[in-house]
Amino acid sequence: MIRPFEFRDDCLLILDQRFLPQKKEYVECRKADEVATAIKEMKIRGAPAIGLAAAYALVLEAKRFMNLPFPQFIARFKEAREKLASTRPTAVNLFYALEEMTKVLEGCESTEAAYSLLFKRAVALEAEEKERSYRMAEAGIEVVLPKSRALTHCNTGSLATVGLGTALGVLKKAWQERLLELIYVDETRPLLQGSRLTAFELEEEGIPYKIITDSTAAMLMAQGKIDFVMVGADRVAANGDTANKIGTYNLAVNAYFHHLPFYVVAPWSTIDFDILKGEDIPIEERDAEEIKKIGELYLSPLKAAAYNPAFDVTPSYLIKAIITDKGIIYPPFVKSLAKKRGLTE
Amino acid sequence: MIRPFEFRDDCLLILDQRFLPQKKEYVECRKADEVATAIKEMKIRGAPAIGLAAAYALVLEAKRFMNLPFPQFIARFKEAREKLASTRPTAVNLFYALEEMTKVLEGCESTEAAYSLLFKRAVALEAEEKERSYRMAEAGIEVVLPKSRALTHCNTGSLATVGLGTALGVLKKAWQERLLELIYVDETRPLLQGSRLTAFELEEEGIPYKIITDSTAAMLMAQGKIDFVMVGADRVAANGDTANKIGTYNLAVNAYFHHLPFYVVAPWSTIDFDILKGEDIPIEERDAEEIKKIGELYLSPLKAAAYNPAFDVTPSYLIKAIITDKGIIYPPFVKSLAKKRGLTE
Repeated sequence: MIRPFEFRDDCLLILDQRFLPQKKEYVECRKADEVATAIKEMKIRGAPAIGLAAAYALVLEAKRFMNLPFPQFIARFKEAREKLASTRPTAVNLFYALEEMTKVLEGCESTEAAYSLLFKRAVALEAEEKERSYRMAEAGIEVVLPKSRALTHCNTGSLATVGLGTALGVLKKAWQERLLELIYVDETRPLLQGSRLTAFELEEEGIPYKIITDSTAAMLMAQGKIDFVMVGADRVAANGDTANKIGTYNLAVNAYFHHLPFYVVAPWSTIDFDILKGEDIPIEERDAEEIKKIGELYLSPLKAAAYNPAFDVTPSYLIKAIITDKGIIYPPFVKSLAKKRGLTE
Repeated sequence: MIRPFEFRDDCLLILDQRFLPQKKEYVECRKADEVATAIKEMKIRGAPAIGLAAAYALVLEAKRFMNLPFPQFIARFKEAREKLASTRPTAVNLFYALEEMTKVLEGCESTEAAYSLLFKRAVALEAEEKERSYRMAEAGIEVVLPKSRALTHCNTGSLATVGLGTALGVLKKAWQERLLELIYVDETRPLLQGSRLTAFELEEEGIPYKIITDSTAAMLMAQGKIDFVMVGADRVAANGDTANKIGTYNLAVNAYFHHLPFYVVAPWSTIDFDILKGEDIPIEERDAEEIKKIGELYLSPLKAAAYNPAFDVTPSYLIKAIITDKGIIYPPFVKSLAKKRGLTE
């Protein structure tokens, strides 16, 4: 199973996903700063993967400044944390990971102890994330009927997290259980995480799929060729409204119109109870150049204006269920999410 | 105003739109065969432009075979006509133009006279098409309210036809009349006719626009940033069902869901009364490679499967009005189209 990064003591090797599937290049990061750049430039992406990379970035800082007195180390630590937090605003997993890493330093008094605590917590976060992906897959296959044809968007597999993935993890598991016939893969413009990354993972695992352009899904739904839609999430509000890769809302509207179930798959840590509704989720707007060119090739007039939001928000009433590592959550989400939280946190 | 081709006596110069906006290259076609290849490879595209190129291709054949006895010329003519007809199955304008060109040969007995008749008819078809674009624009601005923000798909401007265009012609006219604030331009995957061609035309004419990926429109509609959708058509059935560039149906569903008017703009010749409903319109499926790579750069695994229909069908109940050179047609289309036909044909 492919992994988005490898941690090597004083170095985080990040697989540069921008060149997949044609080139498998790794970026060596020895400072939090370099990890922050890799996240910002989307060398690594996928909400859970970003969170884990940020956690290991803080371990790198502890290693680098092992010889500093504790208060000076803490100043460096905070600086690195702010830098990492500023890379991408939408996915909540990043902030969750940074908070978890900060928490372990409570009561700590030496830099050496800090390093050890941070390292252990990062490894544990990774193990938890992996465990969660298996739980989501286990829970999620409950909603998949035999002989189904699924549609998914962006990449939510092993490259976006560790382990099986979120939405793609459920679909892989459903294939193993012989429930799935075919996965339609939205190419996912502008960065083509579908045709580049999801197709790559499915090709590697021998799971049948077809790439389509993002605007083809509606026609396939009308023709009865898609049975359900399953996507990941970058942040879920307390009422179930879900921010995810641009184009997700478009699919949710189409699923609703064509009476098809629309599922969100996300680890519990993606639910942000501090955000009450979708419109309060900060949405990252990225450089127009991402739309205007591919590689170094311009596809539009050099001076063209383009609007490039990285995410959109799907209101909860379009979502049939949210599949988490704590089980499947059904509407009304504001109640069922709060209830599950009360029971388990 | 940019033109998709120039006719030069024994040569049709076709602007190779695949390289726009970065390169302005012309292909010299001296045989119908070469024109057919240019159409098939989408060097020239846009339903009305294809029809006119095919008409001039038949003039080229008449010129080439001027010295043949009439029956032998007719054999060559028919061969060329079949070749041209086989290039692209969906747009009806191609078949309309070929039929019009064939009709003028009725009663003709010499190859020389045939050349003269064909040349005159091709020139007249072009003039008619141009005239139609102005009539559509004149009719179409009636539906545009002041300070509107429009969304359009693919390219339906001067590059797709001659004159102003169809949907883009209406939008250009609406801009001149100070009714439009902004045009959102769907990039239109896989061949990017929006970001390459529509953006190019709007840039040249100084009309404000923003390119978006095809899956961003839904989000903008939800945010109230789009007032109406206006697209062209490759074939309209007798009941108003409309085949147009893949992704059109996706927009129509979203317009419906967000209570926005969805307009089709097409010359009267695009309406095919021999086709009763949308599902009977033949839909061209194109090579998967168009999705898998841009230029020579592969964006997906080399062996990846992809599904690449060139068009989809929008059912008439999602269409607010069809704007033609014979005026605006409102639902119920099966009646109003038949009535207009009876009055005017």
